[in-house]
Amino acid sequence: MRRIVFLVGYHNTGKTTLAERLSEELTKRGYKVAYIKHDPKGHGRTDKEGSDTHRLFKILNRVALLGAGKLTLWEKAEDDPIKVVERYFSDMDIVLLEGWKEIKGHKKIVLGDLPVDGYKVSKDTTLEELIEYITKD
Amino acid sequence: MRRIVFLVGYHNTGKTTLAERLSEELTKRGYKVAYIKHDPKGHGRTDKEGSDTHRLFKILNRVALLGAGKLTLWEKAEDDPIKVVERYFSDMDIVLLEGWKEIKGHKKIVLGDLPVDGYKVSKDTTLEELIEYITKD
Repeated sequence: MRRIVFLVGYHNTGKTTLAERLSEELTKRGYKVAYIKHDPKGHGRTDKEGSDTHRLFKILNRVALLGAGKLTLWEKAEDDPIKVVERYFSDMDIVLLEGWKEIKGHKKIVLGDLPVDGYKVSKDTTLEELIEYITKD
Repeated sequence: MRRIVFLVGYHNTGKTTLAERLSEELTKRGYKVAYIKHDPKGHGRTDKEGSDTHRLFKILNRVALLGAGKLTLWEKAEDDPIKVVERYFSDMDIVLLEGWKEIKGHKKIVLGDLPVDGYKVSKDTTLEELIEYITKD
């Protein structure tokens, strides 16, 4: 069964560090885990201007670079993480998504004092409690 | 019907420029076209050291960045372009692959004097001839 869990909170509240700790622990317990980060303003530069894939991505909607143990794939895509999960992560047990605080209807771990519904993390919250929240039905 | 076509040739023989011209023309004719480039030595730097996705990719096998009209996906993957096509490009009409000259059993466009079987491009070869080679059964 695939579980989708959003990690939300203001900047610098520890979302990525928590994603790392959860990823390590859930992987150790045998879950297939993946991670998707929201980049609403497109700040992430993932290809070099002038590279071959960069040139072809101006013409095509999907290009990739493969070798040395790694695939990188670029696709022109709307900002809908659920569609991306369905399309590219359907074989995963757990997908951790960082960001998209406005999306409703999914489990959400909330850091800091962001006023949205979800599992609120306080300084007393343990990793074990969060894993139970993520993995329970 | 999906067609897989390799573009092979030594460095600086015009593989990427040809991929661009073919992509433009095939797209214009209504084909869904994608492109995969071989990066055998992993020279392509597609994520920044220290970025959130870079941190998580040290722990997980598949991560992504989504927003501003673009998805970037990274996966730890073996160097097998046919498997990548099956997994991520199965909805395409034509996939152009740059590199992998040693792979047999697929259409191959050969630039320069590389001694491999395939459609040899000379200075008299027209784009139309290559498109016929790609799209014929």
